[in-house]
Amino acid sequence: MKFLLLFACLAFQAILISGNDRSTYIVHMDKSLMPEAFASHDLWYSSTIDSVKAQDLESSPSLVYTYDHAFHGFSALLSKDELETLKKSPGFVSAYSDKNVTLDTTHTFEFLSLNPVTGLWPASDYGKDVIIGVIDTGIWPESASFKDDGMSEVPSRWKGTCEVGQEFNASNCNLKLIGARYFNKGVFAAKPNVTLSMNSARDTGGHGTHTSSTAGGNYVEGASYFGYASGTARGMAPKARLAMYKVIWHEGRYASDVLAGMDQAVADGVDIISISMGFDDVPLYEDPIAIASFGAMERGVLVSSSAGNGVPEPGNMHNGIPWVLTVAAGSIDRTLGGNLILGNGVSLTGWTMFPAKALVEDVPLFYNKNISTCDSAEKLSGISNAIIICKNKYSAALDMLSYVANSSAVAGIIISDDHIYESNDFPYPGVVISTKQGLDVIKYAETTSKPTASITFQQTFVGTKPAPAVAGYSARGPSPSYPGILKPDIMAPGTLVLAAWNPDRPLGQIPSIAPNIQLSSDFNAISGTSMACPHASGLAALLKGAHPEWSPAAIRSAMMTTANPLDNSQHQIKDIGSHFEIATPLAMGAGQVDPNRALNPGLVYDATTQDYVNLLCSMNFTMNQIYTITRTNISCSNPSSDLNYPSFISLYDSTLATGGITTVQHYSRTVTNVGDGAARLKCPRQRVQLSQFHQIH
Amino acid sequence: MKFLLLFACLAFQAILISGNDRSTYIVHMDKSLMPEAFASHDLWYSSTIDSVKAQDLESSPSLVYTYDHAFHGFSALLSKDELETLKKSPGFVSAYSDKNVTLDTTHTFEFLSLNPVTGLWPASDYGKDVIIGVIDTGIWPESASFKDDGMSEVPSRWKGTCEVGQEFNASNCNLKLIGARYFNKGVFAAKPNVTLSMNSARDTGGHGTHTSSTAGGNYVEGASYFGYASGTARGMAPKARLAMYKVIWHEGRYASDVLAGMDQAVADGVDIISISMGFDDVPLYEDPIAIASFGAMERGVLVSSSAGNGVPEPGNMHNGIPWVLTVAAGSIDRTLGGNLILGNGVSLTGWTMFPAKALVEDVPLFYNKNISTCDSAEKLSGISNAIIICKNKYSAALDMLSYVANSSAVAGIIISDDHIYESNDFPYPGVVISTKQGLDVIKYAETTSKPTASITFQQTFVGTKPAPAVAGYSARGPSPSYPGILKPDIMAPGTLVLAAWNPDRPLGQIPSIAPNIQLSSDFNAISGTSMACPHASGLAALLKGAHPEWSPAAIRSAMMTTANPLDNSQHQIKDIGSHFEIATPLAMGAGQVDPNRALNPGLVYDATTQDYVNLLCSMNFTMNQIYTITRTNISCSNPSSDLNYPSFISLYDSTLATGGITTVQHYSRTVTNVGDGAARLKCPRQRVQLSQFHQIH
Repeated sequence: MKFLLLFACLAFQAILISGNDRSTYIVHMDKSLMPEAFASHDLWYSSTIDSVKAQDLESSPSLVYTYDHAFHGFSALLSKDELETLKKSPGFVSAYSDKNVTLDTTHTFEFLSLNPVTGLWPASDYGKDVIIGVIDTGIWPESASFKDDGMSEVPSRWKGTCEVGQEFNASNCNLKLIGARYFNKGVFAAKPNVTLSMNSARDTGGHGTHTSSTAGGNYVEGASYFGYASGTARGMAPKARLAMYKVIWHEGRYASDVLAGMDQAVADGVDIISISMGFDDVPLYEDPIAIASFGAMERGVLVSSSAGNGVPEPGNMHNGIPWVLTVAAGSIDRTLGGNLILGNGVSLTGWTMFPAKALVEDVPLFYNKNISTCDSAEKLSGISNAIIICKNKYSAALDMLSYVANSSAVAGIIISDDHIYESNDFPYPGVVISTKQGLDVIKYAETTSKPTASITFQQTFVGTKPAPAVAGYSARGPSPSYPGILKPDIMAPGTLVLAAWNPDRPLGQIPSIAPNIQLSSDFNAISGTSMACPHASGLAALLKGAHPEWSPAAIRSAMMTTANPLDNSQHQIKDIGSHFEIATPLAMGAGQVDPNRALNPGLVYDATTQDYVNLLCSMNFTMNQIYTITRTNISCSNPSSDLNYPSFISLYDSTLATGGITTVQHYSRTVTNVGDGAARLKCPRQRVQLSQFHQIH
Repeated sequence: MKFLLLFACLAFQAILISGNDRSTYIVHMDKSLMPEAFASHDLWYSSTIDSVKAQDLESSPSLVYTYDHAFHGFSALLSKDELETLKKSPGFVSAYSDKNVTLDTTHTFEFLSLNPVTGLWPASDYGKDVIIGVIDTGIWPESASFKDDGMSEVPSRWKGTCEVGQEFNASNCNLKLIGARYFNKGVFAAKPNVTLSMNSARDTGGHGTHTSSTAGGNYVEGASYFGYASGTARGMAPKARLAMYKVIWHEGRYASDVLAGMDQAVADGVDIISISMGFDDVPLYEDPIAIASFGAMERGVLVSSSAGNGVPEPGNMHNGIPWVLTVAAGSIDRTLGGNLILGNGVSLTGWTMFPAKALVEDVPLFYNKNISTCDSAEKLSGISNAIIICKNKYSAALDMLSYVANSSAVAGIIISDDHIYESNDFPYPGVVISTKQGLDVIKYAETTSKPTASITFQQTFVGTKPAPAVAGYSARGPSPSYPGILKPDIMAPGTLVLAAWNPDRPLGQIPSIAPNIQLSSDFNAISGTSMACPHASGLAALLKGAHPEWSPAAIRSAMMTTANPLDNSQHQIKDIGSHFEIATPLAMGAGQVDPNRALNPGLVYDATTQDYVNLLCSMNFTMNQIYTITRTNISCSNPSSDLNYPSFISLYDSTLATGGITTVQHYSRTVTNVGDGAARLKCPRQRVQLSQFHQIH
């Protein structure tokens, strides 16, 4: 079956412009056409904007940012008429309206076999002097993960700075957090009267603090999420440097700010950009991350990005950009939960993340089939001093738990096969067990005269099998912006990742019935491809440290060709999103990243800027659209969809096969031997049936 | 002023016997008078009991325990008439009714300068193979503190056992917990129909688990009380062996059981007995601990005991027994609490033990003098989304906090100079600060238009000065049972000591308004001379390990003559119980125990059994009373109150001095040089005025 292209172009979330109100446009310019009269591109851009002022508006159109590293151009507040005038100006390439960015949301180093004795950690000296630029919600600089114990002087090549702002001063940076900047002009342009709640690089959400510490956080003893996953936290590259580029605001998320942040990161001299967010449903030539990352790639900076979160449907991913690393999320071989011990001595491992060691010891067990749906306060009104058993295949586990929380039950046993193991929300004492486990519990409750149970909390079980499995929330390929390259590229740990968090954010409320008391934690265990991406970013930083000469494509190739398609049971990785069937490359890419093997991949599939240009030329783009990405005049003398990529994807029409017609597609690849001896590659093949898939044109 | 002996004999808590009901008596016998016809003392005692049966009772009097190590005799259920008959039996020495025992209630190793490099730890190999018998409420054998990692084989001289009982089997003992026994006959004798809630050596209270782990617990990483005092826990003698003798029951605390436990501990071959409990208001010859510890002393076993808890009044201590080590409690140089940060940036350290990291960040501060007494629900009914400031010099801090807990306030700032720092009870978010600190907080609240504050929790501050100070709850000398020896002997850490705890006991309820949710913890931070005693016991075990030839008196002497009368400010130790005036020897004995110095005391004041007999002979006791303690026929040929003790106490009548009469008392001492070279001792003197003091005769 061929991919059904139901829409030639999906409607994307453009901001509708009514009349002559101004809104922000991102404008790409051909800098080579700048008249000599202008001393700088800034002046040229300003002059251009001034020249397009509409007659019917009192004020002038205004510049938001100029961009000069990742691409050439600016963003500006323009009316529709002014935009039309601008399009006729010399040097104009393309323009599109500012977009909203979608945010994706520690034992992992062990799970990935990183160790101090052999492999990537010692080979790279833990990422020493590699600089990771994180494009995110800001950073909580006081977090212990960003202390600079054991860090040497900042590399002299670093051109970044520690930008002063609200509750953020220059001393908040150190030898670990070597830079912090913030980009708010896009927000102000869209909402001129807005008051930013934290007008600095300081994180108010927690997301950027979490991703930064996952990629390059220092060692922190005694880290845990309320006793779960306790241990010594550390980033993938514990000695790497971090620079934060805050582009996401509580008050708004704009492409213009994201572009500005990425542009500056390249200018400052970062080695790796980690960006745990993406733009949904945009073509490559209007995707700020695609555009900025092309410039980064040209300068040798790898952009590592998240595939996005969603229901497991084909083609719902973002960041499926041929010149970036696109990361899917998998589970960890760690279960955070508790034990349910029945009065007869039977002990079951269940899931709970109740944020305290609640005392539930030898409590009477209550089961009544009629109220076991646990779906109304009335049903549970008669329960007290008991653990209630809830089971309803139609209710979500946490819905049932919320009714238990509002009853007088001591705790709840929730029988559910819900995939809620990816959330840290557990507002009342209890444990979630599977339908299969539930049979034994109900049998015990029904056949015993005085059934009792105990529940333990704050348990961390390591060695869970099978792991990894593709997370249910991990978005799937093919890439809607260009399905000709297999995306995502690799999978990394993303489920209940423990990393640093803002201590001023409420977490783990105990209990829901005492809303006055909110808790906080310096570490949070959360899930998402946003958590997988910085794992890959930190590992890429280690590879860059071990092989400073490798191009972004070489680093990505090393990670992909050495990725592991098997789980810790030595079977093919399963997909939680497809009821534990074998995961396809559209879910996990080449498989779970294997950092120590990536250190010595033998052969790499390299790719130059020209290779990507040739690829762009093979797409059904106008020269203007291509130029928006490449920023230099290119000629499409050698268009080729056959990019030298470590993976293949072949799209074919199943109706042709049914009609007896044989279709042959030829691919050619060039490998570079980066090892000491001879090497050979083997290509695992997999056929995937897709019912439908929406490509964006 | 002379000690005013207001009562010749205090009424002690004898159980009143009405008519001919039977109750338990502890009977001391002269074993040398046992007729040859009896093959064993057990048979003799049984026969004796049978022979005293009263005519008017159907059943026979029954034996509870026989004792043969710490002293000779038995306990038995007897009627008043039967007791009178018994008194005329051959071999009878004395009898008294069974009594109720009073229970007294970890950076400390660092505070006491124990370290792996020099001093007592390496000299004793951490107490390896020294056996500490703990007389207490039982033990939670699964506690990580009782794992036997790193322990070698049990010494072959050990004669103890792991007694099987309810939820306790032989496999609960190991190379660390080498023995566990339980003694319940006294409870059953007093309450024949009682059902013991845990009829085994398993702890149900937590007290015995705590004291055992303080004395000889193994290393446990990640220990804390809900985030307070977190770190690696360990006992004073981490390689010592532990044997539990459970004598305290939820259902009753009887002298007969305590005696049986101590008796068995000596028979089993323990080196040190740690007993964190005592009998109040009993003369030496009716104090089971005095009696059993005499026998232990004769066999070279040091008994380390707690001085008791109470208001700081002269002479309210127990265990002031000349042949035991009596331990007072002091503070630790560690503060468990939090920071109060005002909106103006001022940061104060306060006390809180709220058992979670509550989020109290930039919350409006509310102060109204009229409701700041925080002593009724009505007054606080209007408060919400605010931190309320409470200040009332007449209310206890925790009383104020309980009203805050039942209001809609986010947290409370309690201004109080209450000495509640010795409790772990903190049911609602808040912080207690001193009256002095309170002035600044009120000033800020009153002079600022929108005052705010933040409170952090789970903070542990080390290096608090001055420390140690005598705890307010530590009971005071002189010893009412014999004031002629200065008691207590030494002081050890007792306040908010972190040690192992029963995980099945509710702790740290959050919050009081959600009574359904109770919390638990594997470690607890509690206060009392009960916590000081096992510190001394563990240190005594280390000294025994380093100097196996030392007598109990020599070990005690080494600890006393090297004790430190200065705190960590290098000033004389203060007494929290007397508003931080200089502590007297009646509060702290010789001062804070200093283990490394005790290793090499130079000179020791030794004492033999005969010395103690001579002391007993100098007391106003009958020969029968003396024999109750000594168990052998002694002659009082050389009575002497001048025991070779490391301290002096001189009682004199101040009215004589006022009348111009000079009183001279002479003391003589013999010191033994246990060091390599010459040594000299200096005697610090201190005069204490006592308004009244009750000696027991």
